Amino acid sequence: MKILSENKAFGGRQLVASHPSPSCQGEMTFGLFLPKEAEAGRVPVLWYLSGLTCTHENAMVKAGAQGWAAREGIALVFPDTSPRGSGVADDPAFDLGQGAGFYVDATCAPWAPHFKMWSYLTMDLPALVFEAFALDRDRQAITGHSMGGHGALTLALTHPERFRSVSAFAPICNPTQSDWGRKQFTAYLGANEADWALHDASILLRERGLDLPLLIDQGSADKFIDLLMPGAIEAAIAASHTRGTYRLQPGYDHSYFFVSTFMEDHVAFHARALKA
Amino acid sequence: MKILSENKAFGGRQLVASHPSPSCQGEMTFGLFLPKEAEAGRVPVLWYLSGLTCTHENAMVKAGAQGWAAREGIALVFPDTSPRGSGVADDPAFDLGQGAGFYVDATCAPWAPHFKMWSYLTMDLPALVFEAFALDRDRQAITGHSMGGHGALTLALTHPERFRSVSAFAPICNPTQSDWGRKQFTAYLGANEADWALHDASILLRERGLDLPLLIDQGSADKFIDLLMPGAIEAAIAASHTRGTYRLQPGYDHSYFFVSTFMEDHVAFHARALKA
Repeated sequence: MKILSENKAFGGRQLVASHPSPSCQGEMTFGLFLPKEAEAGRVPVLWYLSGLTCTHENAMVKAGAQGWAAREGIALVFPDTSPRGSGVADDPAFDLGQGAGFYVDATCAPWAPHFKMWSYLTMDLPALVFEAFALDRDRQAITGHSMGGHGALTLALTHPERFRSVSAFAPICNPTQSDWGRKQFTAYLGANEADWALHDASILLRERGLDLPLLIDQGSADKFIDLLMPGAIEAAIAASHTRGTYRLQPGYDHSYFFVSTFMEDHVAFHARALKA
Repeated sequence: MKILSENKAFGGRQLVASHPSPSCQGEMTFGLFLPKEAEAGRVPVLWYLSGLTCTHENAMVKAGAQGWAAREGIALVFPDTSPRGSGVADDPAFDLGQGAGFYVDATCAPWAPHFKMWSYLTMDLPALVFEAFALDRDRQAITGHSMGGHGALTLALTHPERFRSVSAFAPICNPTQSDWGRKQFTAYLGANEADWALHDASILLRERGLDLPLLIDQGSADKFIDLLMPGAIEAAIAASHTRGTYRLQPGYDHSYFFVSTFMEDHVAFHARALKA
């Protein structure tokens, strides 16, 4: 691992580091905020998964999460959204390829060699950060924005034993039925839609339910709302009798202004679960 | 005036607008955060001046000010740091020309036609925003970062009647004695150093004192500290018997992580003066 930068922030440390990822077969970059409590022992950790076009950096500088995390003594991990580099496949569209990994393990050419974000987030990056930093593996929570909200929900629904709570900001809720999903799943996973269902939060929630605290915020003025399909997750929460909170926030859009507005609530929500 | 974007944020509105500036002889862009209280009447306003290389946007998305301002019912104005455009003089260096207006009125070629940031901030932009928005001209405060801290301090020292309070994050304190100042004042104002003294906060404070609440934060690990010369403003605070607070923050650098860490304190500091 290489530490690329370090800035003192809110009494703790904001790091950017890179490391070789076996799953993605290349160097991956992530951000990590460590509250000052990490100097004295292992601290709870909140994973933040970002949306389309983002790197590890966007939320790290724009979501306003560190101040609230510092107040609660919680660490934050900001992974990248895909493998990157000249040897990695890409596509001219902003919603496919680099910056758009969709949190799946690609099985189809040309994506399969590097696009393994599911394995990266379930194996490589946890293995690294719990080894290298004072993070408590038994107190993890996860959140994300847009494509990252999709990632947070599907990871929590597939590995509920790993997380104490899950939330999302304007997540892609039903990608098997959306142009934010069908295109990417076809490219990364192939034409068999049965493979897609394992990465659709609304389907997973209907099938499995979720015994974790769940919070979703969605802006009513989000211009991508038809692609996000929040109605599907609302219906799945109801159908599965999940104890989840879905909030339609009037007038808010899809931007980091929306995310930062409700970040205080989300960090407090996770802190209750992580520190219970 | 053209509204370029609008995002709901923290219950209020984050706007970006552009307008023709008579002083700068061209179109200027600025950010404006209006708390929800501005729907019901005029609200106090905190001006935030940015540093070298910044546009109106950097602090607007990275400084984390809107949440605190919303809590206090205060508006924020984020001006640009210079005139811009293909018809405007520039320099390859990051610290001269576009993005580096230094908050002065240039008198020398090639800068004089457009580089009039002093007049822009004392005349053009106030005239516009107090006319167009529900801002209270009698409740203004000012802050800034680095070159913007220099601008905030020199504006408050020159027009103390306009502001209720002034603060700065890692300001350029003594530009007549620093390579962040001498180069730019030579280019913009010419070789007569007597003209420079009107834009040096440490000189102005020694000469005039300041009867406004004053707060300055400076990181001890700031790699630009020798250019910022905080010792000069500390000495001027003492020599002028000004009631000012200068805080050396251990371990903090020059970044927005530093600014955002102490933004809560600065907004609270200004709120006390603005709402007294």
